[in-house]
Amino acid sequence: MSETWLSIPAESGFGVRNLPYGVFSPPESSPRVGVRIGDHVLDLAAALGDPVFARPNLNEFMATGQACWRRVRAEVTELLTDEAHRGTVEPALYPLDEVELHLPYAVADYVDFYASEHHASNIGRMFRPDAAPLLPNWKHLPVGYHGRAGTVVVSGTPIVRPNGQRKPPAEDTPSFGPSRRLDIEAEVGFVVGTPSPLGTSVPPTDFARHVFGVCLVNDWSARDIQAWEYVPLGPFLGKSFATSVSPWVVPLDALDAARVPTPVQDPEPLPYLRETDPWGLDLSMTVELNGRPIAHPPFSSMYWSPAQMLAHLTVNGASLRSGDLYASGTVSGPEREQRGSLIELSWNGAEPVELDGGDHRSFLADGDTVTIRATAPGDGCTISFGEVTGTIHPAS
Amino acid sequence: MSETWLSIPAESGFGVRNLPYGVFSPPESSPRVGVRIGDHVLDLAAALGDPVFARPNLNEFMATGQACWRRVRAEVTELLTDEAHRGTVEPALYPLDEVELHLPYAVADYVDFYASEHHASNIGRMFRPDAAPLLPNWKHLPVGYHGRAGTVVVSGTPIVRPNGQRKPPAEDTPSFGPSRRLDIEAEVGFVVGTPSPLGTSVPPTDFARHVFGVCLVNDWSARDIQAWEYVPLGPFLGKSFATSVSPWVVPLDALDAARVPTPVQDPEPLPYLRETDPWGLDLSMTVELNGRPIAHPPFSSMYWSPAQMLAHLTVNGASLRSGDLYASGTVSGPEREQRGSLIELSWNGAEPVELDGGDHRSFLADGDTVTIRATAPGDGCTISFGEVTGTIHPAS
Repeated sequence: MSETWLSIPAESGFGVRNLPYGVFSPPESSPRVGVRIGDHVLDLAAALGDPVFARPNLNEFMATGQACWRRVRAEVTELLTDEAHRGTVEPALYPLDEVELHLPYAVADYVDFYASEHHASNIGRMFRPDAAPLLPNWKHLPVGYHGRAGTVVVSGTPIVRPNGQRKPPAEDTPSFGPSRRLDIEAEVGFVVGTPSPLGTSVPPTDFARHVFGVCLVNDWSARDIQAWEYVPLGPFLGKSFATSVSPWVVPLDALDAARVPTPVQDPEPLPYLRETDPWGLDLSMTVELNGRPIAHPPFSSMYWSPAQMLAHLTVNGASLRSGDLYASGTVSGPEREQRGSLIELSWNGAEPVELDGGDHRSFLADGDTVTIRATAPGDGCTISFGEVTGTIHPAS
Repeated sequence: MSETWLSIPAESGFGVRNLPYGVFSPPESSPRVGVRIGDHVLDLAAALGDPVFARPNLNEFMATGQACWRRVRAEVTELLTDEAHRGTVEPALYPLDEVELHLPYAVADYVDFYASEHHASNIGRMFRPDAAPLLPNWKHLPVGYHGRAGTVVVSGTPIVRPNGQRKPPAEDTPSFGPSRRLDIEAEVGFVVGTPSPLGTSVPPTDFARHVFGVCLVNDWSARDIQAWEYVPLGPFLGKSFATSVSPWVVPLDALDAARVPTPVQDPEPLPYLRETDPWGLDLSMTVELNGRPIAHPPFSSMYWSPAQMLAHLTVNGASLRSGDLYASGTVSGPEREQRGSLIELSWNGAEPVELDGGDHRSFLADGDTVTIRATAPGDGCTISFGEVTGTIHPAS
């Protein structure tokens, strides 16, 4: 693969080996599908002449399947590397700072997993100090649950602090009001392209035929609402007020050099969860709170791979739709500075996180801005996932 | 309101005071919106000339809002009661047995509540015999969780027994295979028409502005898969293989005579959950297993009303979309024959349910057919919800 004729800084992370997809509006125009190259967006409908890209989301293109995704990726690479195309491509390029970015896919179903052993163990240690940190099922299956698809929002959308019922342990009855323990969860998301019919399952070997690409997710969490409501049916309002996703979906084919085995899985998983080719991913994440990096979660430390999550999600015959999104759960590594949530970083408030100017946080304050970024090793380059960011607005 | 000029048996339940909406295909034609009258379906696009009904689901019409729903209901009533319209209406009527019925709405998000005190108490008594049957949050909020929208299917769709991980208490490690404890949950569903924006809540008084209508739900449940997976994030694969819904959506305006107060709520709910006008509903349900009635759950016994469920669902600012479906949770009354699930009817297998021919069931066998029906009192008539039915096919 040769290099692009565009002038892109070496450290961009958005070179011709990345080419993530998104949905953007040029000034005073309607949303359409684009590919990011450097600090520009390529209007795919204009560049390729295919109406599947003149849509307000990626779903129709994602449903065309892996062979088509690869053909389009090859065509876009050709356009951006052979200078002969410069004259036709340049009119379809928009500077990023002149366009508006949208939620890139219509979310069909949203599932959130809980696949970091370090995160699950930290939560267990905090809330069940006298018991084993992991529950008995945790190493046998990727624990997960369905979240609210309708409140998945694109990076930059304001996050209004949710109201709800909270009952601190010291009080007898619940009270109503704004969450006092608003938190983040730094996660990685996987976007399904190719559907699967009801009654069939998708083995780990078919992961790349169904998953179109990878994004960043901030699963905002109101810990006090969640703690009171979640027994016995799981998280509900403590999560459903908003989930932010990054505007760029990095194709799986851009991540070949980032593939790594998962940590050793002991006990060996049941056959339907066994991987032959590894789908762990060496993503380096950074969490910034008000501009200061507070954590560096390593996705390579996740116990369950995204291919195993998909195999589990479908093993009961549940169908997949184009636009299904599933997230990894909080990414936390073994070290303190690798934890992907404030409740872990501040150890449930006992060790507040230090910010610039001597400020401290156990949970989020109104006005706080959280930004999650990630990169992965590419083929002689860096693959950037861009960022997912959000600012907390006061409860209404 | 006068009577219809169609010949409809008095016991039909589908008279001119019901007029539920569905989606049907006439022979060799595409799906479209219809209204059921007796044993016929009225093709609304043909009868009213509005293209909003020439759609494969109700979502666009449902999004038009309560004033429009009422106008259309009045127009359809006029067509079916004034014999002057007979000549124009009759060509738009199809006998039910000549059409195919479809899933009537594209499900946006699906939420399942747990709003029957008797059901929650029965489950608590079976699984936590030494503790209080209800968990501490249960009388303070309608407990609920998100389910899988993509596997909601219309009545009549075969239900394939799901595979998954099960770990009986007597075994050390989980095994994989078809569920051995496949169950039903007889529920009532509420379909959202009018959307609400992110960051706002919908008080109980606004229930009828947002909810378009009511249907029947069978929340098929694999108890063994669920029991192993559900800690700490709630039900997932034990439910997500299929959820069946009835093909007819009964408008709220058909249910005025069925409105009843909920049972006394003690402690008094927090202000955001208080109802001024009651939205309990006097629906009488029947559960049939292979043609034999095995339960008669009374929806009027539900602790939380559907208006309270909606207020809770949105109190954190979660938005609503046209096509959101939320179900009540299993409907169980105080008596044994009023229980809406096999796990309750058979008391976790200790007291199998008797079927015709001396057969017994604790859970479902391959080939079993479950049909749930319901009626409500109307204005001098009976309002029928029709049925939701499904037959168990062997695991694949």
